[in-house]
Amino acid sequence: MLELRLVQGSLLKKVLDAIKDLVNDANFDCSSSGFSLQAMDSSHVALVALLLRAEGFELYRCDRNISMGMNLGNMAKMLRCAGNDDIITIKADDGSDTVTFMFESPTQDKISDFEMKLMDIDSEHLGIPDAEYQAIVRMPSAEFAKICKDLATIGDTVVISVTKEGVKFSTRGDTASANVVLRQNTTVDKPEDATVIEMTEPVSLTFALRYMNSFTKATPLSGTVTISLSSELPVVVEYKVAEMGYIRFYLAPKIEEDEDETKPEV
Amino acid sequence: MLELRLVQGSLLKKVLDAIKDLVNDANFDCSSSGFSLQAMDSSHVALVALLLRAEGFELYRCDRNISMGMNLGNMAKMLRCAGNDDIITIKADDGSDTVTFMFESPTQDKISDFEMKLMDIDSEHLGIPDAEYQAIVRMPSAEFAKICKDLATIGDTVVISVTKEGVKFSTRGDTASANVVLRQNTTVDKPEDATVIEMTEPVSLTFALRYMNSFTKATPLSGTVTISLSSELPVVVEYKVAEMGYIRFYLAPKIEEDEDETKPEV
Amino acid sequence: MLELRLVQGSLLKKVLDAIKDLVNDANFDCSSSGFSLQAMDSSHVALVALLLRAEGFELYRCDRNISMGMNLGNMAKMLRCAGNDDIITIKADDGSDTVTFMFESPTQDKISDFEMKLMDIDSEHLGIPDAEYQAIVRMPSAEFAKICKDLATIGDTVVISVTKEGVKFSTRGDTASANVVLRQNTTVDKPEDATVIEMTEPVSLTFALRYMNSFTKATPLSGTVTISLSSELPVVVEYKVAEMGYIRFYLAPKIEEDEDETKPEV
Repeated sequence: MLELRLVQGSLLKKVLDAIKDLVNDANFDCSSSGFSLQAMDSSHVALVALLLRAEGFELYRCDRNISMGMNLGNMAKMLRCAGNDDIITIKADDGSDTVTFMFESPTQDKISDFEMKLMDIDSEHLGIPDAEYQAIVRMPSAEFAKICKDLATIGDTVVISVTKEGVKFSTRGDTASANVVLRQNTTVDKPEDATVIEMTEPVSLTFALRYMNSFTKATPLSGTVTISLSSELPVVVEYKVAEMGYIRFYLAPKIEEDEDETKPEV
Repeated sequence: MLELRLVQGSLLKKVLDAIKDLVNDANFDCSSSGFSLQAMDSSHVALVALLLRAEGFELYRCDRNISMGMNLGNMAKMLRCAGNDDIITIKADDGSDTVTFMFESPTQDKISDFEMKLMDIDSEHLGIPDAEYQAIVRMPSAEFAKICKDLATIGDTVVISVTKEGVKFSTRGDTASANVVLRQNTTVDKPEDATVIEMTEPVSLTFALRYMNSFTKATPLSGTVTISLSSELPVVVEYKVAEMGYIRFYLAPKIEEDEDETKPEV
Repeated sequence: MLELRLVQGSLLKKVLDAIKDLVNDANFDCSSSGFSLQAMDSSHVALVALLLRAEGFELYRCDRNISMGMNLGNMAKMLRCAGNDDIITIKADDGSDTVTFMFESPTQDKISDFEMKLMDIDSEHLGIPDAEYQAIVRMPSAEFAKICKDLATIGDTVVISVTKEGVKFSTRGDTASANVVLRQNTTVDKPEDATVIEMTEPVSLTFALRYMNSFTKATPLSGTVTISLSSELPVVVEYKVAEMGYIRFYLAPKIEEDEDETKPEV
């Protein structure tokens, strides 16, 4: 028996909107510690890891570990039927091939339940080792989304370069090139407007903008985004899910074969 | 000579937006008692009945009964040219093959007149007998619209089941099924947020969601909708037009041939 | 060396949005007096003239006259990357084949520079003689935009007729005809809501609505539009750009060959 009750149901709506375009089908893994998902995107380039810790739910009952395969598009479609203030409960009986989403309006005058068939999905769970990163940038998530969207109108890749002074995003296309520099800035009115850089050494890495723009679908979840960079490792783009967990996107840097074509001037 | 002056012209704009997708061409019937329309939708499944009573107009002159055939798409296009605060006057000379819509801005600084050719449309006027309904549900119109829209993402038909406790909307599709239950609730802050059920016996009927979703185009006209159900009769979905009239949509229930396919669990 | 700094950078964004659909490629001419552009639309029917006077910039350095060929679509795409409160600086080195747009956020925490290749564009500069107009109408720009949009749902051309009492816009299509009359009105709360007519003699001219609707893309630039009409001359539709200049659109009237088809009743 599985029963997870989330009073702030809109979080689950936003989680699904954040990942449904990147991943078609995936297994949600439920254990006593939390509700999680790990999946490659459909072209097997980026990795998504979601964790919602058990403590974040108002009720969390998971009698034994269970893995539920779902089509994320269908799941998102159902969650869009929940009101933004609704309480969402996820329920599944042991051995059942269906999962039920129940939506309760705050006044309890409207109760919806949506029952969806589960799928069998092959997946292997990758161990993601803890790592030390050369540079970690925390910045407003809306700013990161705007920069990725703006640069994609010019080029296909972005070079992210971090120094102590700030972080630079660069691209180059057929008719134009662009550099956007954000200065480190911690003296802001609202903490989530800060741009904070922690680094042990400068780093400059190139990524496909297409994936970065997919990751920014998670922007409504959190006012800030954290970008962790190291020369030898995939970048981690992380959005917190309230106090209860996170979505992390992993993407390997591009190795630049032809400097003239893809590397903007610094 | 016909001259109908409506100070709250936006009502006429909303009326047209409510019916133009369902009905292509129709006759507007004008008599001393009011301005009305009755028409089948283009696939001859649903019926629309509109009444705007003479008393609701600031000026109502209709020297003799007249039936004016109009293309509702063209009429809606013209009415969209009226400002939301404009006074709208409908004018037609006896024997003329055109109708004129005049729009006056509240300050009288802008006067528009749009003249449209009338059409000859064959139509027979159906007598709709007064009926006793087994159950009448009055509920917020926006809630009804959201439920019909949500369920249409899952299935093609909706089962509406009314008991004393509340009204249940159910559907079933290929990958999922859904039930939405609204409880009777009259203790709300605003009267139009109430869900009120009057019934003589429980009733459960199946309808095509496609038509229900067409009917909800009338939602901007009124904060509440009234749904009248009886086993032997078409459902009536009614939206009031201010204090001056109504739009009523009629739709026959579906006879279920294959229970397994279309009947959700109760 | 060219360096033009505009604190109210959003003006430049609006200027480009106003002309990019009408003109694909054009030369921006920079001299000590200002930044200007003159170009025919791609079908060589309408003419656009833009002037931003040197005094309107916070910094205006233009060592020698220079003509910079740009693709307006690409330029608009870049300017859309500027924030609405950003300061925009246009820079070009002498003899360079690129131009740089720099965007500074109000807090100076974000600095973007976009470098775009210049193009060689053949163009001849037309002398536009000063002219006396029979009638000049100044009216709210949003009202003009709505009228042009509304009439285009009925017909292809608009007849603009000016008398002392007001200005009439008329059209005629297959199924309908329309007249919109604005009365001269100077007693309004806000000066930009006024409709003011200066005329030496009545005038009535016919124009293609398609072009008028293109011109109204400039509406966000100014609350008022000025329409100057004379029987022998192209109409001038002018939008002020703050206190620093203007966009003027020129369009020749249509000669009516078949009165029945195109001339609405007066």
